[in-house]
Amino acid sequence: MINAEKGKFLAIHTHSPLITPVILSGGAGSRLWPLSTQTKPKQFHALAGAVTMFGQTLKRVAADQAAQFGAPVVICGLSHFGPVSEELARENVTDATIVLEPKPRNTAPALAVAALIQAERDPEALMLVLPADHVIARPENLHQACLNACAAALDGRIVTFAVTPTAPETGYGYIKSGEALGEGVFAVEAFREKPDLATAEAYLADGHYAWNAGIFFFKASAFLAELELYAPEVLVAAREALAQGRRDEGCVFLDEAAFVKAPSISVDYAVMEPTDRAAVVPVDMGWNDVGSFLTLWDLAEKDANANVSQGPTALFDTQGCLVRSEETPVALIGVEDLVVIATAQGILVMHKDRAQDVRLAADAFKAKS
Amino acid sequence: MINAEKGKFLAIHTHSPLITPVILSGGAGSRLWPLSTQTKPKQFHALAGAVTMFGQTLKRVAADQAAQFGAPVVICGLSHFGPVSEELARENVTDATIVLEPKPRNTAPALAVAALIQAERDPEALMLVLPADHVIARPENLHQACLNACAAALDGRIVTFAVTPTAPETGYGYIKSGEALGEGVFAVEAFREKPDLATAEAYLADGHYAWNAGIFFFKASAFLAELELYAPEVLVAAREALAQGRRDEGCVFLDEAAFVKAPSISVDYAVMEPTDRAAVVPVDMGWNDVGSFLTLWDLAEKDANANVSQGPTALFDTQGCLVRSEETPVALIGVEDLVVIATAQGILVMHKDRAQDVRLAADAFKAKS
Repeated sequence: MINAEKGKFLAIHTHSPLITPVILSGGAGSRLWPLSTQTKPKQFHALAGAVTMFGQTLKRVAADQAAQFGAPVVICGLSHFGPVSEELARENVTDATIVLEPKPRNTAPALAVAALIQAERDPEALMLVLPADHVIARPENLHQACLNACAAALDGRIVTFAVTPTAPETGYGYIKSGEALGEGVFAVEAFREKPDLATAEAYLADGHYAWNAGIFFFKASAFLAELELYAPEVLVAAREALAQGRRDEGCVFLDEAAFVKAPSISVDYAVMEPTDRAAVVPVDMGWNDVGSFLTLWDLAEKDANANVSQGPTALFDTQGCLVRSEETPVALIGVEDLVVIATAQGILVMHKDRAQDVRLAADAFKAKS
Repeated sequence: MINAEKGKFLAIHTHSPLITPVILSGGAGSRLWPLSTQTKPKQFHALAGAVTMFGQTLKRVAADQAAQFGAPVVICGLSHFGPVSEELARENVTDATIVLEPKPRNTAPALAVAALIQAERDPEALMLVLPADHVIARPENLHQACLNACAAALDGRIVTFAVTPTAPETGYGYIKSGEALGEGVFAVEAFREKPDLATAEAYLADGHYAWNAGIFFFKASAFLAELELYAPEVLVAAREALAQGRRDEGCVFLDEAAFVKAPSISVDYAVMEPTDRAAVVPVDMGWNDVGSFLTLWDLAEKDANANVSQGPTALFDTQGCLVRSEETPVALIGVEDLVVIATAQGILVMHKDRAQDVRLAADAFKAKS
């Protein structure tokens, strides 16, 4: 059934252009401490299902999916070369290009480098940019959105796939759709920062707003042109970092001195907000950024007492808890609505309502170490 | 001031007999899992203050205390030879005899062996038996009780130092005092099992009941005579375990085949209850058996939010908790009245009211390993 569906897409779109997946794996968020750490950030953990989030991202853009995906480009920090290589090997991806950032400079310089590399091969090639640490439960809808947005992207639009909102979330930025450019493709009318609850409710009721998920789709040459216009210093630094760097067996080592001259700026601020070429495609793709332990508990299958547990755990008279241990046995007795996370790096015991405050713990121990 | 007090006792009692401390270190309770484990039970942890409970017990019967203490005898399991040796070295005790039990057989066989060893040296010598894992905040009162009870013990009484109750505790056995035998020394009228609350309240109001703390004081020959009468099979096995065992540099290795023939029985059941030579001395000694994490929290100094923490911990919006970590950083966010204990063996997260249920966790992981 699913293969038949895929076959149909392939048949219809055999002439659709090859898409280069670009996987952004630069993050090392502290919102899931002590699970997510600098050494092993979120994307290298199996948070939803048996496969790591990085692995799920690779599967999402594998060559056998509906859209025609080519060899991926992965952008990560130098210290994550090991886990990235392991992930690629596990998914049997042998043709990836790994771009190693000597220092994190946010997303605009990273994508500038990716677009320059792609332009060397084919400046008209399309690129799909995906963060490595998101859940997308319905990738087929993202694939369909790629196909729908091909014309706009080939026409030089910088497309962002936004998430059809399902609740008045205050933790995300929103994108307002303007005039229609094609089937489900709209000009961006406005970007909105994280709203308060009343505003978020109004956005939800309005129907023209979608969550900004940091997923982009564009032609390499078009993105470089917009960078040239709105963030030339990013482009100069990226070009120089590539020229002064070296390449070795599918790895691109950027020159540190050149790369750090790039301002640390997101692609949203550097390109999407200033450009008049921005387009948005709202997609109902079952997206989740797994931004907190509460989300992790929400996503997971629960036992009869609404507990979610993983690893060597024993629960007695315990309700509504999320418990994970990597190795050390963890026992819970007579507690409820707690998040308990145990790794070799640290142990977190937190009321589930305080999931937004995990940074307190991460910072406390970062300061001490 | 304290030295002057000690000097006074020494001056008054220069002719009081030498007392051999016997330290029972055979326990490996699971009520403080994962702190207390078979490998490193409670007595080898610093639970109240900076010194381990074993170390505190040694200090309590050091030669420089008010009563005249001689070289100690320590009874422990074979696997605890290492920590016991370390404790003795740390307290500069070089003249101890370490009796190594090949298997645990409860307290009666252990004390039979200790009394036989003591009787070889001097059958008329007094022995003070102390569990290695109790807190005694006012040891001077215990010392005074020893001096007060000397006459009764030399007269062949098997004395138990019971604890003047301060609350209607239902977790302890009680001893009822009968006729006076001397200054603060009474014949035992009855032993009572752990009472219900109403009974415990009646005991407290009555004034003749004290907690059985497992602290004994007797002449070696007298104890052996009572064993001969009431538990001859214990005495035979102990004598044989010594005869077939070997001795080496202050260590006594009991013969396993002989020792395990002793019934596993407490000194309370084997001797104290059947004998008509039992005496009791209620002592207000600030005793605590630190039998649960709630007790540990009760005993410890608290911060402004009623938290007790030890090790690498960070607490945010947290009240009334006991937190200990041996090594891994532990963060608590927005929780209250929890016990959180982290060791390499396990992690316990428990409501403080459930301190009596720790065995659930200990058993769960024992069964799995």
